[in-house]
Parts: sequence; C-alpha cells; structure tokens
Amino acid sequence: MEDEVVLLDFNLSMFGIRVRIALAEKGIKYEYKEEDLVNTKSALLLQMNPVHKKIPVLIHNGRPISESLIIVEYIDEVWKDKAPLLPTDPYQRAKARFWADFVDNKVHEVAKKIWTGKVGEHETEKKELIENLKLLEEVLGEKPYFGGDTFGFLDIAFIPFYKWFFAYEKTGNLKLDYPKINAWANRCLQRESVSKSVSDEADIYEFVLSYRKKIGVD
Amino acid sequence: MEDEVVLLDFNLSMFGIRVRIALAEKGIKYEYKEEDLVNTKSALLLQMNPVHKKIPVLIHNGRPISESLIIVEYIDEVWKDKAPLLPTDPYQRAKARFWADFVDNKVHEVAKKIWTGKVGEHETEKKELIENLKLLEEVLGEKPYFGGDTFGFLDIAFIPFYKWFFAYEKTGNLKLDYPKINAWANRCLQRESVSKSVSDEADIYEFVLSYRKKIGVD
Repeated sequence: MEDEVVLLDFNLSMFGIRVRIALAEKGIKYEYKEEDLVNTKSALLLQMNPVHKKIPVLIHNGRPISESLIIVEYIDEVWKDKAPLLPTDPYQRAKARFWADFVDNKVHEVAKKIWTGKVGEHETEKKELIENLKLLEEVLGEKPYFGGDTFGFLDIAFIPFYKWFFAYEKTGNLKLDYPKINAWANRCLQRESVSKSVSDEADIYEFVLSYRKKIGVD
Repeated sequence: MEDEVVLLDFNLSMFGIRVRIALAEKGIKYEYKEEDLVNTKSALLLQMNPVHKKIPVLIHNGRPISESLIIVEYIDEVWKDKAPLLPTDPYQRAKARFWADFVDNKVHEVAKKIWTGKVGEHETEKKELIENLKLLEEVLGEKPYFGGDTFGFLDIAFIPFYKWFFAYEKTGNLKLDYPKINAWANRCLQRESVSKSVSDEADIYEFVLSYRKKIGVD
C-alpha cells in the first residue's frame, strides 16, 4: 500500500518548515494543504488537531500527528532507512532534543516577545536573545552541522528561525551577527530540502509588519 | 565497568519524580543528591546544567542530561532491556510524547498560575485546568494505563502531578474529580517505583503555602 501523507501547514511557519525539510530529506511525497490562519481554520485542521488547533499537522494514512518536533521524530522513526535525522547514540540524541527544546523556549519564545512588542521595550528579552544565540554558536563550534558531519534533527529544528533574524533585528533594533551560525546556515541552505522549504526574509518581515499592525503595536 | 549514575534533584519536584520512577522501573542504582533550591544551588548543579540551572539533572558516567522528559527517554534508550517505557510503534510513541507535552504545558503551566496566584483570580485558568484534565480522562478511557496494558512514558509524565491535585483544589478553590484518573492513579501507586517516588499531598500543600507566603500572594 502506498503511504498517504498530508501536511496541514502555513507557508511562513517555522514549525511547518521543520516538517517540510524532514519530509524532503526522506524523499516522501505528500499533499500540502495551506491553512488560512488569519481568517478561518479549516474543518480538517480542527478535526485533526482538536487540542491545540494549530499547524503543522501531519496526517499519515488518516492518523494525525501534531507538534513539529514530535512530527520530525515520527518521520525519522517511520521512514528510518533513508537520511537518519536523530543520532543513534542515546547521549547525542538527548543533546539534540535538549537544544531543539532550547530553540523553542529560549530563541522563539524570547524573540516573539520582541517582534510582537512595542519598539524600545523588551530590553531584557533583547539581551537574552543575543546571549541565547551566542550559546547556540558555541554549541555548533567548528562542526559543519550541529550533530557533527551530517545534517540532522537540531539543524532542522533551528534553520527555519535563521530566516527570522532579519525581522528580529528590525523590530528589536538590534544586530545579530554570529559567524559560525552564518556559515552553518549557508551550508544548510545549499541543500534543496532546506532552500525549497524555508521562507524568504522579506516575506517574513512583511508578515511581521502586518501582524504588528493587526495587534496594534505599531 | 559499572555505571555511575547521580541524580541532582529536589524531593518535591514533579519533574524529578519522573526521573526517579524511570530509574526505579529500570532497577538502576544511583546516588541521590538533594538540591537546596530555596537558598543556594550547588556548584555541581550550575556546572552540570549551566543553561537552565534547574533540577533534575541525571549525570551518567560524568555526562549530564537535563529536562525531565528528555532524561526519561534517555534512560529508556540506554537501559532498553528492562521495562520498556515508550511504546515501540512510532504512532503510539508520537501520541505518548504529545500528551506528555500537554501535561507540561496545559496542566502544569496552567495549574502553576493558580497555585502561585491570588485567591479568586485566574478564573480562566481554573476552567482551563478542569477542561484539560477532562481531556486526559478521555485519553485514558477504559485502559489500565495511558499506553494500554503496561505502565509507561505518559504514566510517568503525569502521575507526579496527581499528588498536586489537592494543592490545586485548595489554592484554586475548585474540585477536581475524575473517576478514571483516580482509578488509574491508584493503580500506578500500587507500584513500588511510584509509591516510593511521589510526594505526599500534605508536604506539597505545605510547600505551596510557604511558597505563596514568600512571593507575597497570601
């Protein structure tokens, strides 16, 4: 039986992009369904993710999986013969999961306060974001990818956010410059799985500006 | 070589308890080190978890692992011959991870706003907590354990919080009554791994009261 794979997603979502990269790395064909998050969520989304009502949702042979990192692990476990994403060593797996969680809670959540907040406020968050990205720069070190020589789980978890740096800088009036992360990102972007999935910086910034207007902070 | 396992923990921590249950299920001997979180965190804790500076930290042969659910997965992967905690089927694994994340973000985080907040406030959170626990009751259904017939990952993730229900009720002036969750909790508590690890309701409530005094909400 051919696998039926459907992805409920929103094109600029960093969480959706993670799933798209993982699917591309594994060479899985799927149907992409764009959600209109601004106006009305589809009946299918509400049915498939009644708990959080959020994209991305991967529907594999009719069964839904939600939460981007959980989806990426699921993809890695189901299609395990090609392009392994998590390391095999338990300690390295734990480290990859730890830093992926750090990206969610210490990069995304902190940055979101900046790009959804009033200009000039959130000085604490700005310092925190700069420090937290510095930590990721140190974790990367001289390795080509976060997991070592091959592209994997933590690279997938983090790369979609790299394209948001521009929007972080503009809305937070700050400068993010991390030579090792820059080189790593360029390396990732040479992969078709990544370059075809990530968003354009200008599109993200446009979205952020319109979002800020909508919530009344600009 | 004998494994050297050390756990940095705080006795009432629901996150630490998860790790203690997992270690007990696997029959792993370890050295328990209680952290004095109220006064001074130990140099060892700051060295082993410099990022979050939080317990629990499992130190296995000198290498630290942090974040309770990541530690439980690590334990399951390293000591895989005895008492498997995560299901083997990728879809069931994804579901277990999804609901464990739900416990963290939709039970713990919501309840924390109640027990650290002023009496009578947080009406939204109270309704949310009641609804979210109802969802978990539905997920459990007629099964003996969350994963089916055997005690596992999601049981470990959720059971420490059951002992906090009393403190949630008292500080939130609410009633939590879920017959299936009650029966499940009693089933879990018959296991030595659980009964020896969980906290006493009265100790938790005493801790909560003194914490509330300290932060000035009572």
